[in-house]
Amino acid sequence: MTAETMHPADRFCVVYRITAADHAEAKNFAKDVALEQTVELPESSIPAGLLRDAVMGQIMDIRQVEGDSRRFDATISYHFETTGYKIPQFLNVLFGNSSMRNNLKITKLSLPDEFLKHFQGPRYGIEGLRKKMGVYDRPLACTALKPMGGSIKDLARMAAGFVRGGGDILKDDHGLADQSYHPFKERVLRCQEAVSQANAESGNTAIYCPMISGQFDEIEEQVHFALDNDVQGFLIAPLLVGFDTMRYLAEQCKVVIIGHPALSGVFYSNPDHGITPAVLLGSIYRLLGADISIFVNYGGRFPLTKADCLDLSEALRAPFGKLRPCFPSPAGGMSVDKVGEMVQTYGKDTVFLISGALIQYSPDMETSTRAFMDKIHQYSE
Amino acid sequence: MTAETMHPADRFCVVYRITAADHAEAKNFAKDVALEQTVELPESSIPAGLLRDAVMGQIMDIRQVEGDSRRFDATISYHFETTGYKIPQFLNVLFGNSSMRNNLKITKLSLPDEFLKHFQGPRYGIEGLRKKMGVYDRPLACTALKPMGGSIKDLARMAAGFVRGGGDILKDDHGLADQSYHPFKERVLRCQEAVSQANAESGNTAIYCPMISGQFDEIEEQVHFALDNDVQGFLIAPLLVGFDTMRYLAEQCKVVIIGHPALSGVFYSNPDHGITPAVLLGSIYRLLGADISIFVNYGGRFPLTKADCLDLSEALRAPFGKLRPCFPSPAGGMSVDKVGEMVQTYGKDTVFLISGALIQYSPDMETSTRAFMDKIHQYSE
Repeated sequence: MTAETMHPADRFCVVYRITAADHAEAKNFAKDVALEQTVELPESSIPAGLLRDAVMGQIMDIRQVEGDSRRFDATISYHFETTGYKIPQFLNVLFGNSSMRNNLKITKLSLPDEFLKHFQGPRYGIEGLRKKMGVYDRPLACTALKPMGGSIKDLARMAAGFVRGGGDILKDDHGLADQSYHPFKERVLRCQEAVSQANAESGNTAIYCPMISGQFDEIEEQVHFALDNDVQGFLIAPLLVGFDTMRYLAEQCKVVIIGHPALSGVFYSNPDHGITPAVLLGSIYRLLGADISIFVNYGGRFPLTKADCLDLSEALRAPFGKLRPCFPSPAGGMSVDKVGEMVQTYGKDTVFLISGALIQYSPDMETSTRAFMDKIHQYSE
Repeated sequence: MTAETMHPADRFCVVYRITAADHAEAKNFAKDVALEQTVELPESSIPAGLLRDAVMGQIMDIRQVEGDSRRFDATISYHFETTGYKIPQFLNVLFGNSSMRNNLKITKLSLPDEFLKHFQGPRYGIEGLRKKMGVYDRPLACTALKPMGGSIKDLARMAAGFVRGGGDILKDDHGLADQSYHPFKERVLRCQEAVSQANAESGNTAIYCPMISGQFDEIEEQVHFALDNDVQGFLIAPLLVGFDTMRYLAEQCKVVIIGHPALSGVFYSNPDHGITPAVLLGSIYRLLGADISIFVNYGGRFPLTKADCLDLSEALRAPFGKLRPCFPSPAGGMSVDKVGEMVQTYGKDTVFLISGALIQYSPDMETSTRAFMDKIHQYSE
């Protein structure tokens, strides 16, 4: 490929929020980033050549954030081809080496349709998942099978109770891996059996999504075992098993994909540096193919703000090339009592994930789930 | 497995540095973490059962950091079995959900030999790599083939110049992926050919380590292609392709593994939250099997301090079960002029990575590399 075949319009944009003393400092920093993320050489050392202008990051705009004299939004464009259209290198171009700087936060991705068409995104998305489940007019209800260390029998009983109580989506707690006290295969088999049986008895259409967190060389086996045993969805934490693993499984497997945020907090704990939840758990998880993206709700034990949560929900649902919209799923410190507020905040196209609070609500999961569903119905009329 | 077969001594410890108002607040936070990282339920809701005490995280110690009334080191132990002895779930236990809190920094891992024996760690390590290269009495010299967008012919010429100049280790710049202007296979083939030929002509034993950053389902093919064409090492960024991918490749392939820190900066940019470079790029990368761990040197364009860099080097080289010691490789803003200072700081068991500054040193890579090697020899006598 030569510069002639690298169409100059084939560029996407990344907005970096820079903390700097003034506009000049911000501009110098943005120049550094544009080079660091591509040629990784000072401009004076880049060999002359046809590809130079196409390959280098280019500053498109720098402007002070309104009302904040120390923050500047720098928009840098990169040529599509720098990513090879592959997720690991795409993330490398966004933030690979610059993650090791400071005072640099990715707040927005502008990915043109021509770039996005290389990615499948969510297989079901909001509309497809509603159709699959036959639930159209209300938020979906999710819980997590827990605790780690519980017996498979107890986990399966909990699963059945949730399904009989009218719940929609069951996922493993993300710490349920392949431990000897509840090995992956036996656990998945028994929990899916319990869900299938309770569905048959109750007429529910609930799905069970086991956590896929095996080793690189175990993932395919876990996935095939789950598919062979009627599993309809997977829970995947991209930070634990690799970002591209989620993309691959979403493309290959006809299942619902739930993205889990485990280990992702380091990207957004620093207000001045990293990647915002809206970009990481929103745009990027959606690009990877999440049908549902779990995040920690505001007002609970985690520090995300309401604005963070709403920005993230917007990134999951707003138009994004031809990629289907994805369900936001606030979790963590949620409770049955808060369902009304949550419906008001997030709207109907949301998956509410309540786990600990359902266990605390009553000793019987079916009873707890009925209370959860009653609230959802009550506030969805 | 029951509580009787989960030996109570089979626990490893994690030290979390907590920022809190006082000891009581720190203790409550530590209790939250011990639960969050395992059963993920309030203590009152955990079903009674044989496994409860074994599965829950346990606070072993909390003490104020000397001279800092707002910082506390909390040591929490976890049972080996909670990890299933698998990397993704091990990382999940360390920091999965707690990554989404704040004011919590992992500063140390204490992994007993009985736990570490489940991992191979570095295949070569410092001693093995020295033996492989026949270089015993000096630091090793490394450079990066760059820039992204350069022609394969130019990259191969640069590689040959480095080898003829006496350099030891060539790696791809980490942005060289599978872009159409230098596709993975052709680039790897030509660069390895250039290195092999220059080795044969000069009597050098240099190795070439291409960047392995393909998709989940491409990695094996890239690796087999490289191995079939005499490649002796791989450059891998665990954050880009998945932590366990490095573990798997280090175990499966008889090659030198270089760990790259791309995207890792978010773990240590926040002074109060995350995972220190010593734990992440030191202990964890070594556990994954890195023979060489690249990090950003102090005093350059990146914000790591000299103390960070020395702690990290110590974590790579100090006793760690039966895992072999790993070479620290400071990089970023290094130059030929600084070699003396670097040898003094890091000692001989170090891989010095200079890339941009070699290109700037002279228009001829062989000449630049000779100057680099002369300095290394001069300061290693």
